[in-house]
Amino acid sequence: MLRPASYAEGRWIEPGSGARAVHGPVDGALIAQAGGAPLDVAGMLDWARSTGGPALRSMTFHDRARMIKALAVHLGERKEKLYEINPLTGATRRDGAIDIDGGIGTMMVIAGKGRREMPDGHVYVDGDVEQLSRGGTFVGQHIAVPLQGVAIHINAFNFPVWGMLEKLAPTLLAGMPAIVKPATQTCYLTEACFRMIIESGILPPGSVQLVIGGVGDMLDRLGPQDVVSFTGSADTALHLRGTPNLMRHSVRFHAEQDSLNATVLGPDVKSGSVAFDAFIAEAANEITTKAGQKCTAIRRIIVPDAALADVAEALQARLAKTVVGDPVAEGVRMGPLASAAQKADVLEKLRALAEETTRLTGDPETVTLSGAGPEGAFLSPTLLRCADPDAARAVHELEAFGPVSTLMPYRDLDHAAALANRGGGSLVASLVTDDPQVARRVTLATAAWHGRLYVNGASSAGEATGHGAPLPHMVHGGPGRAGGGEELGGVRGVLHYMHRTAIQGSPDVIAAITGQWHPGATETTGPVHPFQRTFDEIEIGETLHTETREVGLEDIEHFARFTGDTFYAHMDEDAARANPFFPGRVAHGYLLLSFAAGLFVQPDPGPVLANTGLNGLSFQKPVSPGDSIGVRLTCKRKTRRTDAYGEVAWHVTLRNQDQEQVAEYELLTMVSYSR
Amino acid sequence: MLRPASYAEGRWIEPGSGARAVHGPVDGALIAQAGGAPLDVAGMLDWARSTGGPALRSMTFHDRARMIKALAVHLGERKEKLYEINPLTGATRRDGAIDIDGGIGTMMVIAGKGRREMPDGHVYVDGDVEQLSRGGTFVGQHIAVPLQGVAIHINAFNFPVWGMLEKLAPTLLAGMPAIVKPATQTCYLTEACFRMIIESGILPPGSVQLVIGGVGDMLDRLGPQDVVSFTGSADTALHLRGTPNLMRHSVRFHAEQDSLNATVLGPDVKSGSVAFDAFIAEAANEITTKAGQKCTAIRRIIVPDAALADVAEALQARLAKTVVGDPVAEGVRMGPLASAAQKADVLEKLRALAEETTRLTGDPETVTLSGAGPEGAFLSPTLLRCADPDAARAVHELEAFGPVSTLMPYRDLDHAAALANRGGGSLVASLVTDDPQVARRVTLATAAWHGRLYVNGASSAGEATGHGAPLPHMVHGGPGRAGGGEELGGVRGVLHYMHRTAIQGSPDVIAAITGQWHPGATETTGPVHPFQRTFDEIEIGETLHTETREVGLEDIEHFARFTGDTFYAHMDEDAARANPFFPGRVAHGYLLLSFAAGLFVQPDPGPVLANTGLNGLSFQKPVSPGDSIGVRLTCKRKTRRTDAYGEVAWHVTLRNQDQEQVAEYELLTMVSYSR
Repeated sequence: MLRPASYAEGRWIEPGSGARAVHGPVDGALIAQAGGAPLDVAGMLDWARSTGGPALRSMTFHDRARMIKALAVHLGERKEKLYEINPLTGATRRDGAIDIDGGIGTMMVIAGKGRREMPDGHVYVDGDVEQLSRGGTFVGQHIAVPLQGVAIHINAFNFPVWGMLEKLAPTLLAGMPAIVKPATQTCYLTEACFRMIIESGILPPGSVQLVIGGVGDMLDRLGPQDVVSFTGSADTALHLRGTPNLMRHSVRFHAEQDSLNATVLGPDVKSGSVAFDAFIAEAANEITTKAGQKCTAIRRIIVPDAALADVAEALQARLAKTVVGDPVAEGVRMGPLASAAQKADVLEKLRALAEETTRLTGDPETVTLSGAGPEGAFLSPTLLRCADPDAARAVHELEAFGPVSTLMPYRDLDHAAALANRGGGSLVASLVTDDPQVARRVTLATAAWHGRLYVNGASSAGEATGHGAPLPHMVHGGPGRAGGGEELGGVRGVLHYMHRTAIQGSPDVIAAITGQWHPGATETTGPVHPFQRTFDEIEIGETLHTETREVGLEDIEHFARFTGDTFYAHMDEDAARANPFFPGRVAHGYLLLSFAAGLFVQPDPGPVLANTGLNGLSFQKPVSPGDSIGVRLTCKRKTRRTDAYGEVAWHVTLRNQDQEQVAEYELLTMVSYSR
Repeated sequence: MLRPASYAEGRWIEPGSGARAVHGPVDGALIAQAGGAPLDVAGMLDWARSTGGPALRSMTFHDRARMIKALAVHLGERKEKLYEINPLTGATRRDGAIDIDGGIGTMMVIAGKGRREMPDGHVYVDGDVEQLSRGGTFVGQHIAVPLQGVAIHINAFNFPVWGMLEKLAPTLLAGMPAIVKPATQTCYLTEACFRMIIESGILPPGSVQLVIGGVGDMLDRLGPQDVVSFTGSADTALHLRGTPNLMRHSVRFHAEQDSLNATVLGPDVKSGSVAFDAFIAEAANEITTKAGQKCTAIRRIIVPDAALADVAEALQARLAKTVVGDPVAEGVRMGPLASAAQKADVLEKLRALAEETTRLTGDPETVTLSGAGPEGAFLSPTLLRCADPDAARAVHELEAFGPVSTLMPYRDLDHAAALANRGGGSLVASLVTDDPQVARRVTLATAAWHGRLYVNGASSAGEATGHGAPLPHMVHGGPGRAGGGEELGGVRGVLHYMHRTAIQGSPDVIAAITGQWHPGATETTGPVHPFQRTFDEIEIGETLHTETREVGLEDIEHFARFTGDTFYAHMDEDAARANPFFPGRVAHGYLLLSFAAGLFVQPDPGPVLANTGLNGLSFQKPVSPGDSIGVRLTCKRKTRRTDAYGEVAWHVTLRNQDQEQVAEYELLTMVSYSR
């Protein structure tokens, strides 16, 4: 008997007298007692806000990214313990991989994004500086900072590990503490993983807490700095979203709801082709994986009229091979639903769907089982057919959250798109085609209705990641019926736990806030050439003004012959003059870049190790023979990269003898921490 | 008598029998009859969705940006007609400038952003391509497309022109039709401007409609593709937001609510300084402009304990000079409130505030008037003082939406930040300081609570744009009490009327959808060198593979001498070898760039006019003496810029003799439409 405990204010709270009995889906046996002990909800919120939040916010984004990576490694080393518990939920090892390895992998990706795409500081910089004044003494910059409250994660029963980790990683990276509330049916697996997190000691106290059972009046105690992130059914979301206190305080409520996801077979795809086989494999897979209990599973299979018979035949053949039974039994591909209640719900939906569909495969009354008895929550993979999807309603609106999908025909691509959109908003729609123009047409017609569009075909079939798999790189969530929320998508998902603020001020104010120098901010001069200074010695705003150098006609001609770049603008006065950009022959842009490097470079070995690239190079004014150029180079931004060196970005401008700016760029260098 | 008309399904609907009488605030006279005619709400929504939406979506972002600019020019030429009506609302000419010129200017800025920062196509590209597979045959890309429904704009009474235009510009740029519902009290001015829009003939039919009076059951008829964008009071927002139909369909509801905005005087600012004077000027201005009826107005003036007396004295002196009266009378600086009802509401709030404050300036009973009589909705500028802001509640929660502000003391910077945050979320907070580190501390402590932070000081006082002025460049909106919404902020505000979708597919699928080539997508070869082709002839994916060129030690030494770039990594074998990045002496990055140009350039005059810059240059692998390099150059993206030429971006990679990639960048060129 499992007794999953809550974790509140740093203490484990064992199940109490009001605990709920959890029965396993394979044989209906009692497997856990969960919840039922009173929790001090106000104390939990206070611990998160007053202890966890400040501790997390004192770290930089890179600190937190390293912490999340360490946690992922810690869990990865212990994951087999989670796989041992996994079958109790009805999941096969393969189902469990999506949940367990999928969850840990998501943490790794989010941590990596944090290191690569966020600064090693406390303020996320959103977009470029906005010029708000002619003289440049007053500018704008959008930033994002962590919310100062707590994130409440309300998770679904189907992915007890992934569901927790995919929300925790962006929340912690943002710098926000979380309270995790898993669905009770599978909370013991969540708890086992959560316990590993606590035991790792990697997270600061107050960062995470766990609620087994009900959340009490927690939602009534939230405020403007808190977030509710919900995954589950549309009905529950609607109920929670309407909590008066949440509305009164404009509390962010992100909902990710099950939706009537569709897949479309392109009109170009012929039976027997690689793309056709990929379509059948994906559709069958989405019906059987997790016994169809995935919010992204394909509920509607939309195929050309002419292809319907072929698709039906191929899918029926494939589904017939699915071995259903005890998830630990040899050869079993599909386990039971999560509970007897879930099975009952699916059977009820099947009865409603029967009014609009005929059954091609799957008998709700009988299922052939391997290594299990009829007392479990088993169902056969079920394929329905809807002959008139325009007239039908239930197939587009009623979700049987199990191994059930409906096949329906379309006339042309516009019709296919209209049917896909009939779901009223979905997490994902897919299209199988070998014609990129078909993909474009379907995208323009449907993208606004779906959180993700997944296009597969012969060229990508070998590497495509699967219709139903939310990836940490891509946003997950959808409009309308899917809840209108969004999560993941790399840094995009992190920003849902942060607040974007428009900052207006002088360039020095913006620089102090973002840690990045911008034109107009104070320039300082170091004691020696900045390239002789170590990473830590170099200061933001530290500036070098070089000598000037004349660019002669002979330089231009020499450079042209040497490099082979004999473009007429450099070589032919009349032709150059006819060009709208040039007053006559001009210097090569790359000649200017090269001369600039010659002006600012320090030849001797020193902390600056290499020029690794440059960004945003703009040639702004032609340089004519006889003009002189000088360089200003200012430290803009510093980012630690390894144990030995970090990246220093320099803002560089080239000016001519009249002090007119002729070129501007950001120079990237790697600079050692030591001399 | 004004009779503002609704505009529905392309027809003007005059006020009906149930019209509401609108009385002017200057003398209480009846000035308009508004609304009261039945509107076919379902027909209006259908016209927008089925006529306006498709017409707008058939245009590109640049098409729509040009359309918005043309509209702004059209309104600018006719704006004096709006200024003639403006005083009826109680606004002075100066107040009107914020509304009328401010609204037109906002359209211009948004149009400009659309041209510069959005593509000349139908799909907005959000972020970079995500590598989802090892082999690169399956990748990800986020895009945004216009929502397929209609935007309902519910606007406040205080800015009848700006309120309409600042929402219309981003909505139309996104490609969405709108139905505008102004507050009835000042709807006649909105209608006058709206009429100019319709009469211009610039917008396609169905793009915009106008509701004078109530919206009937419109909110009950919205779905997942629609948006409600509300500006007004917190109470009304709460009521509308809870509409069951909106919640059921996850309809986006953006609220921008009046909030208890604060300004903080930095501890470093001394009385008599430039910064101190700027603080006093801004505070006084925010009390009197629009008679304080601005959602961004300063309601709480938070100053160091020691500075309180100085601030009170300076503010009282300044407010005492404010001439109140008929907005068209000579010398009048502040007009009446918008209506007698508004005045009554402010008086009621003043009575509640009196329990926590003392009055420094402004008698609610009497007001000295210039050119107006006591029957108007006039109030004196009112400055209150709260001695114990920690214990007080009303000053942080209760908004007197008029010329009223409360002065309160703080002990230290943390206390100041805590008081600013006591508003429970605001549109804007400001800080006056000359110390960027004070700005940083206050930002970290408060940014999560405010939509905008405005920092002013001596260095920016001459150009700062004002605490209360939302700019089209910066986001406007705030958390919690301010409604949790966001608008403007350049493209950010446009995206609120679009849907972000994660696209997964082969590089060719992504290229077809975005119109941008990426590595892995098909490369084509044109009949001649691509630089000999005009803008329209060049195809996305068109590729040039150059000859290769050996990079000799003599080339490196020659380049070093010529440019002056004698960095040791190029000149000293032993020193180079000691560097973690280099196997020994290597070629200069700029030498490679220059040789690459020599390999791909076409010397003769042709459509390619100039290399204007490059982006994302990354040196990925050192090139040693004796290595050879070759270049692949592929057309990535094309953007029309002027009548004569457009920008063509090329993706460029350099490879060595072992086909290893050594450098990568995006090359920007201007290419003529003709030969």
